[in-house]
Amino acid sequence: MMNKFKRLLIGRPMKSAEIEGEKLTKLKALAVLSSDALSSVAYGTEQILIVLMAAGFAAVWYSIPISIAVLGLLLILILSYRQTIFAYPTGGGAYIVAKTNLGEPVGLLAGGSLLVDYILTVAVSSSAGTDAITSAIPSLHDHRVLIALIMIVFLTVMNLRGVTESASVLAIPVYLFVIAIFVLILSGIIKFATGGVHAAAPALGTTVSNVSLFLLLKAFSSGCSALTGVEAVSNAIPNFKQPSERNAATTLIMMGTILGAMFIGISLLAYWYGIAPNPKETVVSQIANATFGRGTIYYIIQGITALILFLAANTAYSAFPLLAFMLAKDKFMPRMFMVRGDRLGFSNGIINLGVLSALLVILFQGNTENLIPMYALGVFIPFTLSQLGMMVRWVKLKPPGWRVKFIINTIGMLTTLTIALIFVFTKFTHIWMVFIFLPIVIYIFYQTQRHYHNTAEQLRIDVIRDKPIIKGNTIVVPIAGITQVVKQSIGYAKSVTDNVVAVYVGFNDEEIERMEKKWEEWDPGVRLIVLRSSYRSVLRPLMKFINTVEWKTSATDHITVLIPQFITKHWWQHILHNQTSLVLRAYLFNQKNVVISTFPFHLNK
Amino acid sequence: MMNKFKRLLIGRPMKSAEIEGEKLTKLKALAVLSSDALSSVAYGTEQILIVLMAAGFAAVWYSIPISIAVLGLLLILILSYRQTIFAYPTGGGAYIVAKTNLGEPVGLLAGGSLLVDYILTVAVSSSAGTDAITSAIPSLHDHRVLIALIMIVFLTVMNLRGVTESASVLAIPVYLFVIAIFVLILSGIIKFATGGVHAAAPALGTTVSNVSLFLLLKAFSSGCSALTGVEAVSNAIPNFKQPSERNAATTLIMMGTILGAMFIGISLLAYWYGIAPNPKETVVSQIANATFGRGTIYYIIQGITALILFLAANTAYSAFPLLAFMLAKDKFMPRMFMVRGDRLGFSNGIINLGVLSALLVILFQGNTENLIPMYALGVFIPFTLSQLGMMVRWVKLKPPGWRVKFIINTIGMLTTLTIALIFVFTKFTHIWMVFIFLPIVIYIFYQTQRHYHNTAEQLRIDVIRDKPIIKGNTIVVPIAGITQVVKQSIGYAKSVTDNVVAVYVGFNDEEIERMEKKWEEWDPGVRLIVLRSSYRSVLRPLMKFINTVEWKTSATDHITVLIPQFITKHWWQHILHNQTSLVLRAYLFNQKNVVISTFPFHLNK
Repeated sequence: MMNKFKRLLIGRPMKSAEIEGEKLTKLKALAVLSSDALSSVAYGTEQILIVLMAAGFAAVWYSIPISIAVLGLLLILILSYRQTIFAYPTGGGAYIVAKTNLGEPVGLLAGGSLLVDYILTVAVSSSAGTDAITSAIPSLHDHRVLIALIMIVFLTVMNLRGVTESASVLAIPVYLFVIAIFVLILSGIIKFATGGVHAAAPALGTTVSNVSLFLLLKAFSSGCSALTGVEAVSNAIPNFKQPSERNAATTLIMMGTILGAMFIGISLLAYWYGIAPNPKETVVSQIANATFGRGTIYYIIQGITALILFLAANTAYSAFPLLAFMLAKDKFMPRMFMVRGDRLGFSNGIINLGVLSALLVILFQGNTENLIPMYALGVFIPFTLSQLGMMVRWVKLKPPGWRVKFIINTIGMLTTLTIALIFVFTKFTHIWMVFIFLPIVIYIFYQTQRHYHNTAEQLRIDVIRDKPIIKGNTIVVPIAGITQVVKQSIGYAKSVTDNVVAVYVGFNDEEIERMEKKWEEWDPGVRLIVLRSSYRSVLRPLMKFINTVEWKTSATDHITVLIPQFITKHWWQHILHNQTSLVLRAYLFNQKNVVISTFPFHLNK
Repeated sequence: MMNKFKRLLIGRPMKSAEIEGEKLTKLKALAVLSSDALSSVAYGTEQILIVLMAAGFAAVWYSIPISIAVLGLLLILILSYRQTIFAYPTGGGAYIVAKTNLGEPVGLLAGGSLLVDYILTVAVSSSAGTDAITSAIPSLHDHRVLIALIMIVFLTVMNLRGVTESASVLAIPVYLFVIAIFVLILSGIIKFATGGVHAAAPALGTTVSNVSLFLLLKAFSSGCSALTGVEAVSNAIPNFKQPSERNAATTLIMMGTILGAMFIGISLLAYWYGIAPNPKETVVSQIANATFGRGTIYYIIQGITALILFLAANTAYSAFPLLAFMLAKDKFMPRMFMVRGDRLGFSNGIINLGVLSALLVILFQGNTENLIPMYALGVFIPFTLSQLGMMVRWVKLKPPGWRVKFIINTIGMLTTLTIALIFVFTKFTHIWMVFIFLPIVIYIFYQTQRHYHNTAEQLRIDVIRDKPIIKGNTIVVPIAGITQVVKQSIGYAKSVTDNVVAVYVGFNDEEIERMEKKWEEWDPGVRLIVLRSSYRSVLRPLMKFINTVEWKTSATDHITVLIPQFITKHWWQHILHNQTSLVLRAYLFNQKNVVISTFPFHLNK
């Protein structure tokens, strides 16, 4: 039943050999990996305008130079990550780059930040997408958390089905979004050029008295919160079709170009139209409204915008499982993240991402405002570390033209570091949790590695000297009466050894006497030990007895506790029987050094 | 950790011999068993008045004769159950009486009704108690479900601690309630007698044109919905101190006297004061208000009334586990209901009652109106069956004076049957669920009994002919590599038999070749079988192999699958390892007829 449901949900299991077919073409990769970055145009310009409005409407013209600066940073990041792709063709996320060049602790800091950040990506994007819908349809406002959760479940299932299938489904809306935004930008420019817009924007270069450098930097860093997702491509190189590096680099440049064009277009239109940020209507919505009016085209643009925000969450579904795989390979995360599921995706990573982000959405009640600062910080820490790592690499290896590369990464590193520091100083009340959470994550990484190391050491064998040792056998059979399953268990025990002892726990004299008499009558050729329990507990006296047996014979004998158990025909019949044997097994398993054998007896009705 | 929490919550475990100390004295029994019945004065009169008001305020004088009729029925029920106590000194609830005299199916109908009814008692009483609180403190109205659930959890924990302790805690408020109501009645009578009340009630005997017999019967039956809980005493006789029958009978009469006096007192005051039912203020609250004004005494009375309603739920906590025990003894319910917990209470019954009633409260959002009709019907079905059973008993046994006893039970039976039928005809929309639910419960009873019967038959042994049979042994050891735990497992297997085969599942040629080579090098004296898996599943090829072994050797050999497993030092480390062996064990356990042995290897760091 469960199995059928699983098949319906995620499809037939696939052979390991089918893995090559799951690799991504450039166009599909663009859809799967760039929606996070592209969707940022839905709020990037707005973040800048919100900060500038603190200095009055006259200050909004600064959004143009600031947008150009963000564009410059985007260029630097793209160039930097292009260098990374060729330097680390097997997948060079911030984790790999920082680990290789700056040492393991720094790598883990980058990896930990990214893991947390991918979870935040899903939470923020699904919440923001929900906001876009509920802004358009206010009656859905009460169901915001539910809508976000439904999307997370949907994305999780799609990703469990496998990467390529989800790419095919998800590519269409990504391209629709790109087309919609370009249509909006072109129509807006034409409308502005033909004088169809009357809003008076403050002229470029107007002097505004209360604009400080701090305010401008804050506006710049707020705008940069939209640059998340750029690293997704360089992290996912092994997912690309051959030649994977070339394809990944091309995809990265395609993404950067589209993103840059859309972002500067929206910023220009917002400036020309003289749009002020409004908590009840997004900037994109205001531009679309001013250009087309609240007609069909407006609603299409809003709908696709909501969709792309949900798809942005999908980026994390490619990146998180891969990063978890890499961390698991280095033994910093549980081995289960290395296992490919029925559909060849890293199911455990996908499921963990879905559950954790859903928890965040519930915890923050789908409130994006409180999540975004952590989200942005979580991105700029690995950005900085990754570029620092590349700087070290160029200095060490000194390949041809390394000076230019070094300068690119240095500029990038300083910029991203500045932005991260601005976040820390201007929004500390929102992000302090990161400084508690990250050390805990890194501590867990090290504890996990230590455990694997210790385990391997204790399990290691010397194939020359360590050979199996043969000992005698003693078998203890706890029984609750004389039944068919006890008969068969005793038969089995006697087939193994002559040292068999049956143990019975009685609660009162009458019970004990009856049992002893019946045993004598049956006479199975095995000694019966009777224990008395005052506390209605079968386990305690039994454990005591097994302790004694262990103490007496473990030097010469293997001790086996043989548990007779009958198995009901239907699962629900289980609740009709006291599960003492299961509890006994769990107890022995965790406490004692004895072999635990279960003798099953299948009831056939 | 879990264990410590349990100790804190429910106290130290108690010896079976301590059970006598848990028996109830009469005064404690009155507190534990009568709160359900006594609390009914909080709403009994009101139920009558609500129905009568349908014919206008002039009709409220009928409440006096109707209350007297309810009192008469109470007398009949008390006399009847007193007869039952002496006839069935080991506990004669409706289940026992109906089963013994009317046959098993009727007994199960009574038992099923009562079980459902006890759950409804807890749900209705805790909801009604919450209503009383939120009527007094309207700001708590939004947290009604939460308050009711907290009370259910509290009662569950108290009852898990043991009967006597909870009796000591709960006796005080029950007696406070009795005192409070008598103070109210006496003060009210004095005030009325000294002319302090000016309300004009319609005179007794006033002719009201639209009062039909049907209306009067409906009012009577509504008033009777307050007679629940009378059977609790006769069901709980084994809980009384010796001489238990005498003590139970005395307790029953004490309870009936107090209940009758309070009920008629409240009805008289309501009539004298000319009180009309009001959905926003209970009748008791109106009387208290008219007598004392909204001062300290008023709030004390309201508070104690709320408390007694919560305690009414406690009655079910004594009755439900005992009835479940009796049904389990007859194999109609799972055996687990016969097990006494650490504190000697029937923990499983207590926990199940708590969970099911909490579910009802959540499902009905603490809305008492929709629960009460089912609740009342669920009581009057077993009332009727119990008295029918007693009638049959008197005719059969004909003890001295049986005619009087027969007449008492006949009158009772006819009255309760009539009330049950009135419920069915006047409130069918509220109670139809009972007619679906009860047959299902009875079906489950029979299925459970059949399963126990079948199991016993399949497990039964002939001690003369059925002796243990000795066979050979074949051991299969699935391995994932060559480690210390595999070395020890192989050593164990070789100590048992020479027919040992190790099985390895590989995913690709490289892996398989490496394994085969290392095995040859190690040379443990055991054959290695290598299986190849295309679907990354270890289980499927392994199961296939075990099938083959079973098919070949099960005639001559016991087949054992020995699973090497290392056990981590800390529980959380479990998640760091793939739990293939646990899944394999579960699979084998449910599907195959092989002995499953686990060889544990405890990691010590």
